[in-house]
Amino acid sequence: MNKTDLASLKLHKKKGGKIETKSKVYLKNKKDLSLAYTPGVGAVSSLLANNNDLAKDYTLKGNSVAVISDGSAVLGLGNLGAIGAIPVMEGKAILFKKFAGIDAFPICLDTQDTEEIIKTVKYIAPVFGAVNLEDISAPRCFEIEERLKKELNIPVFHDDQHGTALVVLSGLINSLKIKKLKKEKAVVVINGAGAAGTAIAKILIKYGFRHVTVLDSVGIISSERKDLNEAKKELASITNPWLSRGDLSSALVGSDIFIGVSKGNVLKKEAIKSMNEKPVIFALANPVPEINPLDAKKSGAFIVATGRSDFPNQVNNILAFPGVIRGALDSGVRQIDDKMLIKAAENLALSIKHPNPDKILPDPFDRKVVKLVAKAIK
Amino acid sequence: MNKTDLASLKLHKKKGGKIETKSKVYLKNKKDLSLAYTPGVGAVSSLLANNNDLAKDYTLKGNSVAVISDGSAVLGLGNLGAIGAIPVMEGKAILFKKFAGIDAFPICLDTQDTEEIIKTVKYIAPVFGAVNLEDISAPRCFEIEERLKKELNIPVFHDDQHGTALVVLSGLINSLKIKKLKKEKAVVVINGAGAAGTAIAKILIKYGFRHVTVLDSVGIISSERKDLNEAKKELASITNPWLSRGDLSSALVGSDIFIGVSKGNVLKKEAIKSMNEKPVIFALANPVPEINPLDAKKSGAFIVATGRSDFPNQVNNILAFPGVIRGALDSGVRQIDDKMLIKAAENLALSIKHPNPDKILPDPFDRKVVKLVAKAIK
Repeated sequence: MNKTDLASLKLHKKKGGKIETKSKVYLKNKKDLSLAYTPGVGAVSSLLANNNDLAKDYTLKGNSVAVISDGSAVLGLGNLGAIGAIPVMEGKAILFKKFAGIDAFPICLDTQDTEEIIKTVKYIAPVFGAVNLEDISAPRCFEIEERLKKELNIPVFHDDQHGTALVVLSGLINSLKIKKLKKEKAVVVINGAGAAGTAIAKILIKYGFRHVTVLDSVGIISSERKDLNEAKKELASITNPWLSRGDLSSALVGSDIFIGVSKGNVLKKEAIKSMNEKPVIFALANPVPEINPLDAKKSGAFIVATGRSDFPNQVNNILAFPGVIRGALDSGVRQIDDKMLIKAAENLALSIKHPNPDKILPDPFDRKVVKLVAKAIK
Repeated sequence: MNKTDLASLKLHKKKGGKIETKSKVYLKNKKDLSLAYTPGVGAVSSLLANNNDLAKDYTLKGNSVAVISDGSAVLGLGNLGAIGAIPVMEGKAILFKKFAGIDAFPICLDTQDTEEIIKTVKYIAPVFGAVNLEDISAPRCFEIEERLKKELNIPVFHDDQHGTALVVLSGLINSLKIKKLKKEKAVVVINGAGAAGTAIAKILIKYGFRHVTVLDSVGIISSERKDLNEAKKELASITNPWLSRGDLSSALVGSDIFIGVSKGNVLKKEAIKSMNEKPVIFALANPVPEINPLDAKKSGAFIVATGRSDFPNQVNNILAFPGVIRGALDSGVRQIDDKMLIKAAENLALSIKHPNPDKILPDPFDRKVVKLVAKAIK
C-alpha cells in the first residue's frame, strides 16, 4: 500500500465519510418549524401533488443528482459490490458540489440485475433532477442507460461512457490542431470496448472521424466476428468497414492515434514505432497506463495523454460531469445528446488558446471549465 | 390559504428546497482529489469490499438515515404521491440534522406496491445506517416495516407508528402521575386504528395498561367483527377482551383517557362529560383536533394535549425520531424494540421535574430531549 492509499484511508476514517447533509433554512424556533415542516409544508405538498413540474422550484429536485452504482465495475478494481462502491460514489458526489454546486447524493444498489436496477432508479427518481450512472459494468450499462433515458423524464448520464468520451474528443480536437491533421484523415485505434471505448468510438464517428478501429480482449472488432454481444455488434456496424482482423500490433500499423481504455502495459514501444509519424497516444488505463508516458515519448510519440495527474495532459472526467449536469439542470433538458457533448468538447478545446503537445486540455480547477461545458448542454 | 401556508410556499420557492449536500473534506488541489477520490479512494473501496462492517467507520453510513415515503398518506392530506411527499420528507430530513446531527436524505418512491417498496428499500440500503419510514398508509405500512426489519441488517423505524406511540406514552406517564392513577386501572379509548392508533395501543399494552379499546371508522374493534384486516385482527386479539360493541360515545362512557388519532371535530362535549372524573384528552388530529382544547376544558377535561404548537402539551414526534435514530446509530443496534421505546418514553417523562396539567411533555428545542431518548436505544 502506497502513501496516498494510507493517507486516504486515514482521511476517510477520521471524517467518517466525506459527505453530509445540511439545512438551507433556519430552524431556531417553533415558527421556523411551522414553515419548514408542519403545518405550512402541507400547502407546498398540495401544490406539488397537483403540479409535479413545480417540484424543481420548491424542492431539492431543482439542484440534485443521484450518483448511482451497483458496484460491478468500481474504478479499475472490478466488481466490489455496493458497499465497496460507497467511497467512490461519495467522492463523486462531493466533486459535483465542489465543481458545480450540485447537491449530489450517492446511491449504491444492492442488486446487479439489469431490470431491478432500472426499476429501482425509476422508483427513487422523484427527488432527483438528474441521474449520473457510475461504475456499472459493460454491457449491462448500455441497456440500463438507454432504458432509463427512455423511461425517465429527467436527464440520465453515464459518466464512464460519455464523460470520458467528451474529454477524449476535446483532447483529440486540440491534438489534431497541433498536428495539422484533419479528422476525416486521422486513423484511430481504440483499445478497449467497454463503456468508455464504446462511447469514445461513437462520439468520434458522430464528430466526423472516418477511420476508427476498436479492439476488445479478443482482437479487432469486425462484423465478421461471431462472438459479439449486441453492443459490440453495433460497434462493428459503425467501425472498421475494411473488416480488418488481428491484434493491437497489427491494428496500429499506419495509424495516427491510439486511445487505450483497457489495462496497463499493453502498448509496446515497437507498436508505437509502427504508427504514422508523430503519433498521438492516449494511454488512459488507471492507475497503470497502457505505456509509461516517458517510454511513449522515447518511441516517437508526439502527444501523450494519461488518466494521471502526475503527467501532462490528464484526461480527467472532472472536466466533464460537473458541467454536463450543471447545464442539464439549468436548461431543463430531458435528454443529453451527442450534439451537446460534441459542442461541450469543442468549448473545452477552444479554452486552450495555444495548444501544444504538453497542453491539450484545461486544468480541472480552472473555473471556466464548468461554465464552458454547461453552456453547451441546452 | 392562511398566513403560515403562504409564508411556507414563499420560503420553499425562495430557497429552492430545504436540504443540500456538503463536503466534509477539503478539495482545493490535486492532492486533495487524490485522497478523497482517485487514486486513494481505491484503497478504501477495496478494504470495505472485503469487510462490509467497516462501512460505518469509513463512509456516510455511520451517520445517515433514509427518510422514505411512497406519498400514500402525507400528513393529514392523504395520497399525494411521490412528488407531493418531497417537501415533507425534506423537512423531516433537516429536522434529523438540526435536532440530532444525523445526515438524513429524503427518498420519495414512485411506487405504492408493497413488494416493490420492500425490494427498493433493500436495494438502496447500503449507503444508509438506518431507515425511517414515513407517511405510508395503513395497513401496508405494517407489512413493509415488519418485512424490512427482518430482511435488512440496519434499524428500521416507522415514525408515524412508533415515534407517535413513544411521545403519547410519555405524556400519559406524566398524566397518570398527575392524576395519581395506576396504569393497570386506567381505562383508555383510542379513536383511530391507522399506523398511530395501532402502535399506541400496542405500546400501552406492553407498558402495562389493561383496559384499552380501539375504534376504527366502523366502531369499536372486537374479535367478533368479521370485517377486520390482518392488522386489525391482531389489534382485536390484544384489546377489548370484553367484546364491547358500539361507537365512540358508548366507548367513552366511564373511561379515563381519550386518545384521538383520527380526524378533526369527532369528539363531542357530551362524550367528555360521560367519562370518569378529570379525564385526559389527547386530541391529536392535525391541523384540526378531535375537539377544540378550550371546549374540552370547559367540558371537564383535566389534561388536554394536541398535535399543535399553539396549545399546551404538544404531542410532537420531534421529541422522538431524532433521538431514536441517534441512539440506534450510536449504539449500533440492528433492531429498535418496544423495550427501548418504553425506556425512552420514561426518560422523556422524567425530564419534567414537576408535571402539571399544562406541562406533561418537554419542549422539542430542549437539548436534553435527544440525549434522553438516544440513551434508551441500545
